Amino acid sequence: MPVQNLEYPKQPFSTVRRYDSRASYSLEQIHQIINTSLLVNVSFTVPDTPFPQTLPMIGQMGSFDRPSADTGDVLELYLHGYVSSRIMNLSRKKDGDKKDGGKKDGDKKETGDEAPPVAAAAAAAAAAEHSQPEPVGLPITVAASHVDGLVLSLTPNSHSYNYRSATLFGYATPVTDVAEKLWAMELMTNSVVRDRWRNTRAPPNGAEMQSTSVLKVKIVAGSGKIRSGFPSDDKADAGDEALLDRVWTGVVPVHTTLGEPTPSPYNRVDPVPGYLVDYVKGTNKYAEETALEQMTKPMGPKAKTDSRDTVMD
Amino acid sequence: MPVQNLEYPKQPFSTVRRYDSRASYSLEQIHQIINTSLLVNVSFTVPDTPFPQTLPMIGQMGSFDRPSADTGDVLELYLHGYVSSRIMNLSRKKDGDKKDGGKKDGDKKETGDEAPPVAAAAAAAAAAEHSQPEPVGLPITVAASHVDGLVLSLTPNSHSYNYRSATLFGYATPVTDVAEKLWAMELMTNSVVRDRWRNTRAPPNGAEMQSTSVLKVKIVAGSGKIRSGFPSDDKADAGDEALLDRVWTGVVPVHTTLGEPTPSPYNRVDPVPGYLVDYVKGTNKYAEETALEQMTKPMGPKAKTDSRDTVMD
Repeated sequence: MPVQNLEYPKQPFSTVRRYDSRASYSLEQIHQIINTSLLVNVSFTVPDTPFPQTLPMIGQMGSFDRPSADTGDVLELYLHGYVSSRIMNLSRKKDGDKKDGGKKDGDKKETGDEAPPVAAAAAAAAAAEHSQPEPVGLPITVAASHVDGLVLSLTPNSHSYNYRSATLFGYATPVTDVAEKLWAMELMTNSVVRDRWRNTRAPPNGAEMQSTSVLKVKIVAGSGKIRSGFPSDDKADAGDEALLDRVWTGVVPVHTTLGEPTPSPYNRVDPVPGYLVDYVKGTNKYAEETALEQMTKPMGPKAKTDSRDTVMD
Repeated sequence: MPVQNLEYPKQPFSTVRRYDSRASYSLEQIHQIINTSLLVNVSFTVPDTPFPQTLPMIGQMGSFDRPSADTGDVLELYLHGYVSSRIMNLSRKKDGDKKDGGKKDGDKKETGDEAPPVAAAAAAAAAAEHSQPEPVGLPITVAASHVDGLVLSLTPNSHSYNYRSATLFGYATPVTDVAEKLWAMELMTNSVVRDRWRNTRAPPNGAEMQSTSVLKVKIVAGSGKIRSGFPSDDKADAGDEALLDRVWTGVVPVHTTLGEPTPSPYNRVDPVPGYLVDYVKGTNKYAEETALEQMTKPMGPKAKTDSRDTVMD
């Protein structure tokens, strides 16, 4: 039975400040946004540059220990990444540092080559502040957004998008357990096309298992932000007859479309298998219906000070 | 006349390490990916947390000083943001710090409330390393990705996406010049729907101008990564007759679709204006054609060590 309505605790770094009536801390809602995104944006700090790194990756929420757990009742995100990629190296080094005697990362501020000192120091500080054991892994931020509609109002300032965006904060470590890694690879492959895993040459052989890396992210906080409904204009504009006669207002729904599956030059399977045809149809139907639903769903009440939507916030 | 083939210099933080045959440093190609994205992900570090902040925003490349400049010949990104939002506050404070006597941000490491010391210190270090004047503004990373296709091969490990992703690195400051701000607001509104600005009650009034904020990002580096074409499998699998007879291989094209413009409850303009009908049609045609083009466009040569695509990297 799904656990109802679990929410992430609001942390200083995870609290939605602007239009907080649009905020959501519901695990179910946030994880749904993540799981239906083709890509998530994974950001983390690295030494010697003020710029965070951001990488597009495939990610899915799941629980290896409780595989049948409800989407709203898991705290782990699996990401597809490479052993040799920067994020994995940083994550492994950080993980190793912790195991090698548990020195405080703050002590390592000057050894930029070995660990991300900025991130590590801040992680230690954050952990200390909350009186919890120092978390293991690379601190990462994972963001995903669906645009559901272009919201066209009378004035440029009231223009907006209908959108559902989600951000998760957690600590990433590489998955080393073979059974868990296989399980996560199947989870992620089937997120690209449902049932694809068992319709390929699976499981991967030993070399493939070694060359593929999976990150597990223990989520510590998260937030979502959702805008839905038709445009809304200020009273002065909404009462301007000449303006109403001149400017079209409404919503252009936006959704992702999967096109016709197109065989590779070496494909021999014809026609396109049913599981793939069904997946394309089902995914398109869900995407289109969601955009229309978000268009007609009224927004939550706006705060008094939030008299204007601008294009995005 | 457009300037041909300008490229971003490779910086340690901007160089594509994995599948570098898929990398692009072309301003034209990178800016095209940014400008055709409904949203970009803006990431930056903040004090007192190891987690970067990531916000979805609307962004467009442009040049206020040379408005007719080619997309491949500009170094400024305009972002739509709020005065009260965290990013603007950080950016303003940082900007202010620089103007208030030019103290080194490194000296402020302990005053977390006033400025993002982590970012500032790293920015100073980066600037020093390149022997340039210390850059002004908040260091941010801007990322956008288009998924063009699901690439389905014989084995899970060779699965991939066709995609075009772009990352820009730069320093953000709020736009205070009224003429530049107006110009940027028009640029961004027209990126949502071409010609929308002059078909609304524009320009914004004084209160609207004050309540809306625009960030200008001076880009210092960038990179793109592009995967196109049909799947490719290892020789052992591609020669396995039973496997070829069992597993469908090919590409499912992916693109964004704009649906039927749907009038708001207070709309009076009927039928839907031509500029909007044309925009929806044109945008859908471009998106669909791009996905198909990317499917049939062969990939660049793969390095010997890169014998496998996994789902994403």
